[in-house]
Amino acid sequence: MTKHKFEHPLNEKTRIYLRVEALMRQMHHSANFSDNQQYHQFFRSIFDLLEIFEQIQLKAELAKDLEKQRLNYKHWLNVDGVDQEKLLTVLEEIDTTHKYLMAAERFGRSLKEDRFLSSIRQRFNLPGGTCCFDLPALHYWNHLPIEQRQRNAEGWMNTLAPLSKSLNLWLKLCRETGYFNPQIARNGFYQSDAEEANILRLNIPLADGVFPVISGHKKRFSIKFMSFENGQAYSQDVEFDLAICN
Amino acid sequence: MTKHKFEHPLNEKTRIYLRVEALMRQMHHSANFSDNQQYHQFFRSIFDLLEIFEQIQLKAELAKDLEKQRLNYKHWLNVDGVDQEKLLTVLEEIDTTHKYLMAAERFGRSLKEDRFLSSIRQRFNLPGGTCCFDLPALHYWNHLPIEQRQRNAEGWMNTLAPLSKSLNLWLKLCRETGYFNPQIARNGFYQSDAEEANILRLNIPLADGVFPVISGHKKRFSIKFMSFENGQAYSQDVEFDLAICN
Repeated sequence: MTKHKFEHPLNEKTRIYLRVEALMRQMHHSANFSDNQQYHQFFRSIFDLLEIFEQIQLKAELAKDLEKQRLNYKHWLNVDGVDQEKLLTVLEEIDTTHKYLMAAERFGRSLKEDRFLSSIRQRFNLPGGTCCFDLPALHYWNHLPIEQRQRNAEGWMNTLAPLSKSLNLWLKLCRETGYFNPQIARNGFYQSDAEEANILRLNIPLADGVFPVISGHKKRFSIKFMSFENGQAYSQDVEFDLAICN
Repeated sequence: MTKHKFEHPLNEKTRIYLRVEALMRQMHHSANFSDNQQYHQFFRSIFDLLEIFEQIQLKAELAKDLEKQRLNYKHWLNVDGVDQEKLLTVLEEIDTTHKYLMAAERFGRSLKEDRFLSSIRQRFNLPGGTCCFDLPALHYWNHLPIEQRQRNAEGWMNTLAPLSKSLNLWLKLCRETGYFNPQIARNGFYQSDAEEANILRLNIPLADGVFPVISGHKKRFSIKFMSFENGQAYSQDVEFDLAICN
């Protein structure tokens, strides 16, 4: 790989969406328990998700945002030059997903009520708190046949399927609104406008040895490239690709 | 596996030793980065260890405990029937390890001073906080060639080698003092004395579907077996093996 892909959210809500997406990915990735330490990662993803669900009304936010996307797409109905068949497919997908979402429980409700999960949640964040003497029930669970543990994991993850489906759809549609264009950060610095945008996407050449530090809000953003080697601002030009997604 | 092995510390210091042992094991296990999510586990182990190092003077405690073991073993010098050659080997091992430990820096000092580690430590515990936009330097690091990441990990882990060596020796000698004996917990309950003991070790048949909840201090301890299925106290007899280690 010669480029590294980078995404930056331009508002607090999208920031949470991207964190939730990353946690869901971690959760699914570690749920096969092929490695005898993966259960740490699996349960931590679940408990991190629960913490986020307690902080914001994720279901209501997502429903509102899907609705907004539906309205955006509806503007293109019967507009010349717009592929109406494709448009109708997208509108139908939004519709189905929105209904699926509205029929769902409050995110994490079943997980919070799960006896086993709640018995281990509290101590899980202690440094080294997953030792057998801290969490004897977890230690026992970890000795169950792998098929049984995978079935449990499947059951827990299924309760989040409406979240997964809605979030993935919203992020997919959002990402599709942006197109990558080549840009140059003069002396390692770049700034521009991004009216109403949600996510910036960057492809950065690895060879430059830099990573971006981005600050910005809906209207305006700036990207400062830092040298990984010395942690200082990078003072040379950086050529990168940028997509601004609404 | 038809039995599950269980260990319980009988004092606060041993509790920390066992947690540190588990964290060191996790750290080493995840340091090959064979799986693209293992870096989470690796850094989390390191940061959990740093948190423990900030709470107790682990180096001084371990030095004291190794010294205690040295004195214990010295009592057997020139005692008839004691394998003197073996004894001298143990004494020499304690001696070398004690010196190695005393020459070491305060545990975690280099790790705390590492620019990269300290730049990512703070956000690491946010739920979902390892996203690229939260930790751009980590995201960059994760794109480095695996050999380079493994070399970094090796370097960080090496700074804990004196801890690893001393702790493993102390725990090995401690575990060796106990012998497994069959016991029966009548109606799922067992209690006994353990003068000056540090660790209880149990082998419990998995078929009973139970896990132990142990409370106890140096002098006396009790084991209550719980049913995993319903989370209630188990009311039948449980045959298990128990070793009490000083």
